[in-house]
Amino acid sequence: MDFTKYLNNRSNLVERALDKMLPGKEEYPSIVNQAMRYSVFAGGKRVRPVLAIMAAEALGFKAGRVMPAACALELVHTYSLIHDDLPCMDDDDFRRGKPTNHKVFGENMAVLCGDGLLTFAFELVAKNAELKGVIPGNVVRVVKIIAEGAGTRGMVGGQIVDIISENKRVGGPVLQYIHTHKTGALIRASILTGAVLCNADEKSLRALRVYGEHLGLIFQIVDDILNVVGDEKILGKAVGSDKKRKKVTYPSLFGIKQSREEVELLCEKAKAAVKPFGKKAEALLALVDYLKERDS
Amino acid sequence: MDFTKYLNNRSNLVERALDKMLPGKEEYPSIVNQAMRYSVFAGGKRVRPVLAIMAAEALGFKAGRVMPAACALELVHTYSLIHDDLPCMDDDDFRRGKPTNHKVFGENMAVLCGDGLLTFAFELVAKNAELKGVIPGNVVRVVKIIAEGAGTRGMVGGQIVDIISENKRVGGPVLQYIHTHKTGALIRASILTGAVLCNADEKSLRALRVYGEHLGLIFQIVDDILNVVGDEKILGKAVGSDKKRKKVTYPSLFGIKQSREEVELLCEKAKAAVKPFGKKAEALLALVDYLKERDS
Repeated sequence: MDFTKYLNNRSNLVERALDKMLPGKEEYPSIVNQAMRYSVFAGGKRVRPVLAIMAAEALGFKAGRVMPAACALELVHTYSLIHDDLPCMDDDDFRRGKPTNHKVFGENMAVLCGDGLLTFAFELVAKNAELKGVIPGNVVRVVKIIAEGAGTRGMVGGQIVDIISENKRVGGPVLQYIHTHKTGALIRASILTGAVLCNADEKSLRALRVYGEHLGLIFQIVDDILNVVGDEKILGKAVGSDKKRKKVTYPSLFGIKQSREEVELLCEKAKAAVKPFGKKAEALLALVDYLKERDS
Repeated sequence: MDFTKYLNNRSNLVERALDKMLPGKEEYPSIVNQAMRYSVFAGGKRVRPVLAIMAAEALGFKAGRVMPAACALELVHTYSLIHDDLPCMDDDDFRRGKPTNHKVFGENMAVLCGDGLLTFAFELVAKNAELKGVIPGNVVRVVKIIAEGAGTRGMVGGQIVDIISENKRVGGPVLQYIHTHKTGALIRASILTGAVLCNADEKSLRALRVYGEHLGLIFQIVDDILNVVGDEKILGKAVGSDKKRKKVTYPSLFGIKQSREEVELLCEKAKAAVKPFGKKAEALLALVDYLKERDS
């Protein structure tokens, strides 16, 4: 398959859906709607919504079936970046080559804009129940899946441990916690969101969960590698910031070579998990290589 | 009825449920669980969860039927206070007589702790679907109700307009927007949460919505009045802060006398709305007077 074409097509679908679902720029109070749209349309790759769509497709459904919840996942991701960039957190001035939300709209607006996006995400999940054939009980399950993936036992927990581990000599288990939670939890939740909304049976759900878990780790380790050897111009953000902050990362603990080997191994495992879906898992397989080889 | 006794009983039920549902203090990473519990158990009056319970009781159900969602409402309220107190927002050092969350745990933890509480709230709403007799479709409706009440078209929108109106001469319509959104939206959502989870029909829902709308306004105007004439020791926070910040409030626009008259009028209307529920609305009626006469 032409994966780049596939990815462009699906992320364009997400792009249009986000534009349709988010409150308009002119809606009162316009500053928060401008702020939300500024960060949502700042050039994200839409990995999480596309993952939900891929899971739906692996089960024989179309993107539309899961679109509101898929967009919700992108909003959760975007809110986390806005809060992460705040002066009291990572204090980043640029994100994807553009000034961060608080640099443009002020700190107070950035906090509230993030809060608004996180809240609106759950409104969108609820809206998925209005689509034909979607079972309300499954929408409730998705609310729980996303809340768990995003909360203190998921993404937020990962960020907390990331912060309290700075400037400390932490070991493998703590690094593993950060990796599986900070990025991994929402990646896994994205796959499960698509699967549950398409009435996946227990066996399919288990296979997709394993896929999602490995994918999350691949994503994070590649991120860490890029922070060491990436190209600032392509990345759109500073390289070497992890080292400067003495953050513990996969490369800092095991070196670049072993990190790359670990990525290879995880890729094999992720692919094996979705083999039973046959040709319908084509995109899920291609994504693994895409994430492995990405440079931004 | 002995309303104080009633209120103590119901808020004790909420207290115990919150303690049971929130992650334990020792759970890793413990700092965020300590931070969440610090603010959740900082002496809140549990108005929102008790409102959900009162709505349930008006429809002939017991508190337990709506308890997870009721607790969720308190978590949404608590997160909003934590973020509101941040240095980049209201920059408050004390809340209910205790140091604010960021004063104890640091700004970064306060941001993430608020994010965690908001996220966990939706997990609790989803959990309400596990209770016997609760219809999953109604839980989805409650997710939407709470997200709308808490988001940029509700509570967050009210906070945004509150901020952008500081030091500006705004008129009645803007003040009305702030009041109906900043506090009113979540108060109304609380009543509706209880009603929807108890399968309220359209007529009951409409009556309770009207009650909730008026109650929200009463709550906010009384808050504004107390910020002028309240007792700092009883309130646990500084009096006169609205005036110092040149915030537009009901008293600043219409004076204390007319504000009190407006509260009286709203109280009559709120009571009239729930008259059809007869004796089962006893607590809802008593609450109106309680809120009107509160001094903290």
